[in-house]
Amino acid sequence: MDPKITEIRVRYADTDQMSVAYYANYLVWMEVGRTEYLRNLGIPYRDMERDDDIILPVKEAFVDYKSSARYDDVVAVKSYIAELGRASVKIGYELSNKDDGRLLATGYTLHPFVNRAGKIIRIPEKIRAVLEKECL
Amino acid sequence: MDPKITEIRVRYADTDQMSVAYYANYLVWMEVGRTEYLRNLGIPYRDMERDDDIILPVKEAFVDYKSSARYDDVVAVKSYIAELGRASVKIGYELSNKDDGRLLATGYTLHPFVNRAGKIIRIPEKIRAVLEKECL
Amino acid sequence: MDPKITEIRVRYADTDQMSVAYYANYLVWMEVGRTEYLRNLGIPYRDMERDDDIILPVKEAFVDYKSSARYDDVVAVKSYIAELGRASVKIGYELSNKDDGRLLATGYTLHPFVNRAGKIIRIPEKIRAVLEKECL
Amino acid sequence: MDPKITEIRVRYADTDQMSVAYYANYLVWMEVGRTEYLRNLGIPYRDMERDDDIILPVKEAFVDYKSSARYDDVVAVKSYIAELGRASVKIGYELSNKDDGRLLATGYTLHPFVNRAGKIIRIPEKIRAVLEKECL
Repeated sequence: MDPKITEIRVRYADTDQMSVAYYANYLVWMEVGRTEYLRNLGIPYRDMERDDDIILPVKEAFVDYKSSARYDDVVAVKSYIAELGRASVKIGYELSNKDDGRLLATGYTLHPFVNRAGKIIRIPEKIRAVLEKECL
Repeated sequence: MDPKITEIRVRYADTDQMSVAYYANYLVWMEVGRTEYLRNLGIPYRDMERDDDIILPVKEAFVDYKSSARYDDVVAVKSYIAELGRASVKIGYELSNKDDGRLLATGYTLHPFVNRAGKIIRIPEKIRAVLEKECL
Repeated sequence: MDPKITEIRVRYADTDQMSVAYYANYLVWMEVGRTEYLRNLGIPYRDMERDDDIILPVKEAFVDYKSSARYDDVVAVKSYIAELGRASVKIGYELSNKDDGRLLATGYTLHPFVNRAGKIIRIPEKIRAVLEKECL
Repeated sequence: MDPKITEIRVRYADTDQMSVAYYANYLVWMEVGRTEYLRNLGIPYRDMERDDDIILPVKEAFVDYKSSARYDDVVAVKSYIAELGRASVKIGYELSNKDDGRLLATGYTLHPFVNRAGKIIRIPEKIRAVLEKECL
């Protein structure tokens, strides 16, 4: 499967009384998407945080909602590197319905690289090398 | 109290392992903020949806995270009309820590007016009158 | 794979400031577990609700927490029929850590069969036949 | 107001496609209820965790759902000490609709007293004194 794509099934918990997925859940799905994307790139976020003392807080988040996701639908989250700075990365997302390919949303999250002391740091070389390849 | 401001206490459920509120919760707090704001303006969203057959789905959502919210903090959500279109409204938000006034985030949500059949409609006059006053 | 078992990865969103999964998430995982279990039994809940007009609200929920789930862990949810009544089913769960087999929690949910009008109904024969086989 | 009672408004985020509050949210409301209850007793949980190094994880949780909560309803959560052990406390809950008094759910959570090292400890005297008074 495409290492950029993660599939997530819409839970009953995700729906609201309009019978569609509540809008904040898209940010959760984007989290799941980028986690799997980084894992597939060989830089799992859990290890980054635990072993390298690097945290990727969210500085900005944006979602453009195109179409509704419904209970039991499978959402395909495509993640990609939208911008790579010296000390930050912007990850872009395209969410679509796996069955019919319908686009559900696009968006991005912007993440500074921060150490546990809360200081913004340059992206370490081994991580930068991986992310740069993705920008091509 | 300022009718634009709603106070929300950060729940344990809202925190994540960085000991701050998880980023998707800000969209939930913005929902709570705009619900109370509309109620204070005399146009409760529950009645709009139930009696007037008007739905305000979210077309776009944006958050700029400035500072962390922590467990048991009280978040003051200030909502305002950022833009008023013929068939849509953009609501702006400023979230701050009630105790020390620290700005936590700014953001907006963009909402088309839609009827239950899913068709975009012009903003009804009685609602427009209320929202226009808020733009002054 | 065992049709009773569903695997769910712990999301950052699921964690709290104790660095473990927040306790209410176990009920969400149990929902995911029983949904996949019913699907594997050939009686998908989405179809039940949409086509057969049958709803399975939750009457009781119980969780006995044994051990913590952490970020990025894979939780294996095992679901089974604990009791089968004329108009209700009790589903039992065992949640464990997929990697080391550690038991995370046991629990159950009790569901009456209800039609969309809200009336409790006997379990339809074709569904009963499937569930009875699971009780053996 | 009764120090045992906390009021919580049902959010759009809390609803599901049955137009009622999703069942896991009751555990979140119980968390909010017990937090405010402890605060009103003069033993705020935040201070307990931060200053006294005491954690109250959840060992068991039980909910008996009686009636549905709907969007924008105000839920009154009544908390009380159901059992007081040497090293644990069972907190009981009654959730009702504030407007019409309808009972929504009853339930409990069982909490061992644990220090940050993860060891179960006796309930400190100053906390026990407060909780015992509540058992009368």
